[in-house]
Amino acid sequence: MMMQKLRRSGAFIRFGCKSLITSRPDKNSVSRSVSGFVNHYKSKGKLFELSDGNYYNTELHHPCISRHLGMLLQQYKCFGSSAVSLIQRNPLFSSLDSKDVSYFKEILGEKNVIEDKERLETANTDWMHKYKGSSKLMLLPKNTQEVSQILQYCDSRRLAVVPQGGNTGLVGGSVPVFDEVIINVGLMNKVLAFDEVSGVLVCEAGCILENLATFLDTKGFIMPLDLGAKGSCHIGGNVSTNAGGLRLIRYGSLHGTVLGLEAVTANGNVLDMLGTLRKDNTGYDLKHLFIGSEGSLGIVTKVSILTQPKLSSVNLAFIACKDYLSCQKLLVEAKRNLGEILSAFEFLDNNSMDLVLNHLDGVRNPVSSSENFYILIETTGSDETNDREKLEAFLLKSLEKGLVSDGVIAQDINQASSFWRIREGITEALQRAGAVYKYDLSLPVEEIYNIVNDLRGRLGDLANVMGYGHLGDGNLHLNISATEYNDKLLGLIEPYVYEWTSKHRGSISAEHGLGVMKANEIFYSKSPETVALMASIKKLLDPKGILNPYKVLPHSLFSY
Amino acid sequence: MMMQKLRRSGAFIRFGCKSLITSRPDKNSVSRSVSGFVNHYKSKGKLFELSDGNYYNTELHHPCISRHLGMLLQQYKCFGSSAVSLIQRNPLFSSLDSKDVSYFKEILGEKNVIEDKERLETANTDWMHKYKGSSKLMLLPKNTQEVSQILQYCDSRRLAVVPQGGNTGLVGGSVPVFDEVIINVGLMNKVLAFDEVSGVLVCEAGCILENLATFLDTKGFIMPLDLGAKGSCHIGGNVSTNAGGLRLIRYGSLHGTVLGLEAVTANGNVLDMLGTLRKDNTGYDLKHLFIGSEGSLGIVTKVSILTQPKLSSVNLAFIACKDYLSCQKLLVEAKRNLGEILSAFEFLDNNSMDLVLNHLDGVRNPVSSSENFYILIETTGSDETNDREKLEAFLLKSLEKGLVSDGVIAQDINQASSFWRIREGITEALQRAGAVYKYDLSLPVEEIYNIVNDLRGRLGDLANVMGYGHLGDGNLHLNISATEYNDKLLGLIEPYVYEWTSKHRGSISAEHGLGVMKANEIFYSKSPETVALMASIKKLLDPKGILNPYKVLPHSLFSY
Repeated sequence: MMMQKLRRSGAFIRFGCKSLITSRPDKNSVSRSVSGFVNHYKSKGKLFELSDGNYYNTELHHPCISRHLGMLLQQYKCFGSSAVSLIQRNPLFSSLDSKDVSYFKEILGEKNVIEDKERLETANTDWMHKYKGSSKLMLLPKNTQEVSQILQYCDSRRLAVVPQGGNTGLVGGSVPVFDEVIINVGLMNKVLAFDEVSGVLVCEAGCILENLATFLDTKGFIMPLDLGAKGSCHIGGNVSTNAGGLRLIRYGSLHGTVLGLEAVTANGNVLDMLGTLRKDNTGYDLKHLFIGSEGSLGIVTKVSILTQPKLSSVNLAFIACKDYLSCQKLLVEAKRNLGEILSAFEFLDNNSMDLVLNHLDGVRNPVSSSENFYILIETTGSDETNDREKLEAFLLKSLEKGLVSDGVIAQDINQASSFWRIREGITEALQRAGAVYKYDLSLPVEEIYNIVNDLRGRLGDLANVMGYGHLGDGNLHLNISATEYNDKLLGLIEPYVYEWTSKHRGSISAEHGLGVMKANEIFYSKSPETVALMASIKKLLDPKGILNPYKVLPHSLFSY
Repeated sequence: MMMQKLRRSGAFIRFGCKSLITSRPDKNSVSRSVSGFVNHYKSKGKLFELSDGNYYNTELHHPCISRHLGMLLQQYKCFGSSAVSLIQRNPLFSSLDSKDVSYFKEILGEKNVIEDKERLETANTDWMHKYKGSSKLMLLPKNTQEVSQILQYCDSRRLAVVPQGGNTGLVGGSVPVFDEVIINVGLMNKVLAFDEVSGVLVCEAGCILENLATFLDTKGFIMPLDLGAKGSCHIGGNVSTNAGGLRLIRYGSLHGTVLGLEAVTANGNVLDMLGTLRKDNTGYDLKHLFIGSEGSLGIVTKVSILTQPKLSSVNLAFIACKDYLSCQKLLVEAKRNLGEILSAFEFLDNNSMDLVLNHLDGVRNPVSSSENFYILIETTGSDETNDREKLEAFLLKSLEKGLVSDGVIAQDINQASSFWRIREGITEALQRAGAVYKYDLSLPVEEIYNIVNDLRGRLGDLANVMGYGHLGDGNLHLNISATEYNDKLLGLIEPYVYEWTSKHRGSISAEHGLGVMKANEIFYSKSPETVALMASIKKLLDPKGILNPYKVLPHSLFSY
């Protein structure tokens, strides 16, 4: 076994995807025609009461969505039924007219009101080219006041809007479904304050995550989150989608690290919740409503976040394991023995490794022989010698116990980057391999690989099933790769995956959110009473439903 | 300088106050008569719109509360004005009658419907004997279903209720103001599940924090929070008040560590949000509404919380510093150099130390000479030798830099406990010293001691001003000790302290909550728009206002 040592004291920066825009696949290969034909989803079921006194249908738990790349026309099926339904444009929404455009030009200036077809084409399409809207207008506000003016106007006109950050989402949450006005906060990209004593950063929502990381690096701090899309994604989008990523195991979720935010609600009301304190128990902590609600309750305009001191010693090991049980045991041991220095525990299976080796250039398996599972363990600490010795001792002990069959510790930044390239390159490799059905599940750790095996048995030769993800957080990225999209395959996958997850008290969306893709599947993970309360809160904050419509909550709750 | 080493590998348990009930001060020394006389608070000011379309008064920002121990009659003053007003019992609430009691006996059984005067006396009074209600009934539900039945009934009858856990709060949040029915969840005290792989604990709300810690200790885990009241406080109360405590610097707030909860809303609706997953982005994360809302939106009945592996090495240093600037610099250095093993950074000033030495038996100053400030630094890690060496090296370096004037590392558990006894004994010493005005503030770290000095200058010989608290979290416990309560002194303290805090963008309640004590002061820390939204959410979830009335939100928002 190769067990080499990493000797460094300086910066350790993982290669990020500089811009997802530039790495988008060829549009022609995946884009499809758009149809305006729609049919409202209808279902018969029990009624339950919302807090507003109205009654809504509950037995909408299990519609499954038949998705075709680039199709606005989205076909719905109820499992066990041949009923078919489609998303309908809310006829209560106004359509944009020239007066609207003139008004926006007046408040934002000509150049920040985008009608250019090519720019709109990009803004209407998600980066995977799976979801495509037909918005005729993108607005680029420069500050909170402008966001407020835009929303106040749109609310009065009942013009639907979609808030957009870096547009790096995976569930169609950041692009229009129909003709919603796009509000992109990319121009709001200033760092407003940084306190070197507390480590609290205050910035505008449009700051790109990687730019914030670069800024903090000069101050000796790091962001509490890191993810593959860091080169494009905005902090406002991260907060609005409660992004998880690679550092969650160490620094926790954004519900813990975001100390404050400013948000503009549908009617243009500016909510100043931009506290910078670690502790503030004065009333309801309403910022949490805006963390993870995918822009459907308000547009996040500023963020205050607790950053962490950049520690001098980062080590990365790439490990091979024979079976999943060993991976699971290794996690328990790592939490206990590496304890305070553990900063990432990622896994991928052999199918994922093969895919990366086959589709990405210049990638090689760091361990000498092929194995069933691979684990990346990252440690971050303040004592280089001790941390390295601790990681080495841990790996040797795990080898002796038979939990690990091979492993290597990165010798330098380049080698560490090449290890991360394997894990972070899976998404890109999947894109190149053909059609891909993506699921982002939270499950009890001991169940995580059972669903991969079960699905493999179920699909046989029809597709290649891969499992990878943030094992330390119980987060599986389940991906099914096939030569092309087809209904038979989809019928075998859904609702099976959702039912399996629900049965094991998992979440059908660990970190990607629901967007338009899974809005109707929410009942697999949330009780009807809880969803009813969500709908009541949506109605309270956005009575006309203009903010990011058709997303997050089941369409049936907003019948029109 | 004495720099002794702690050599241990086993358990390290801080002495907790076993039961706050047993250590309550003599009632006669602080209890006062109760008056039923009330007078509605009125104020003239600007109007702002709530989401329900109604208009409410905003210029209620700065009433100050003149509090007397044990007085139900609470006297309000507007600063700069002699207007006086009092809390009025909401006349829309029903009064308890014999039919109500019969109904409760029917569903709960005779023995869990408490009418006994002595038990009610205890339940009506907070542990500091500052707040006293006049409830005629305490209910002890055994499960969620019973809580639901109670609330459904109370809502239909419009009987006000106060949820009660360990009754260890400091702002009068857990006792009735008038005749609210007390719902104490103490019988709901079962651990429901513990997953040794993920470290997720699921339990009922009435579990005492220390009992959970003891249970986890047998499994090799610790709770992510720890506080002085652990021997009495309930986890449900901790969650409802978003308790902070000693480990927040390491494991973050309950908004990050509570993974799920079950809550019953005012109408008896049971919200199952009892997820056990670290990541779950399916819809709005509504559990956060119940974390820190002090039982005013629902009663928390079950909690799922992420616990931490118990690490083998815990060290504690007691350090003396000459000035506050040194304390502040030491914190920055500790975050960077102790980094991943830092688990507590507490401070107290010399006045606090003197108070403890004067009023508690068997306590001595661990360092040889008196100094202006004292710091406790706790480290928790997985490597005993390395952690100890790291702490020693850090302290020696700090001594060389002149940040530290003296220090000692605990040699054993007894010595460590004696160090903690000083910090945790301040509250008890204050109680023994006479009258005490307590403030729990969050402030930027560099401002924390300025308010202590300013107030000392302002009060002169009238009182003894002490500052201590969780410096690592920017949380100051500002305490003013006097021989007796008097209006002149209070007039010098309030609203001065609140205004000072607000001016420096601090929080007037870091971790204690608002309760009845500071409900009207919320505007010092939150914007009118945010408070208006809080009120709308309160109205949505509890339209009849029966849950913990007169607390958290300004009384003016609920005019009757």
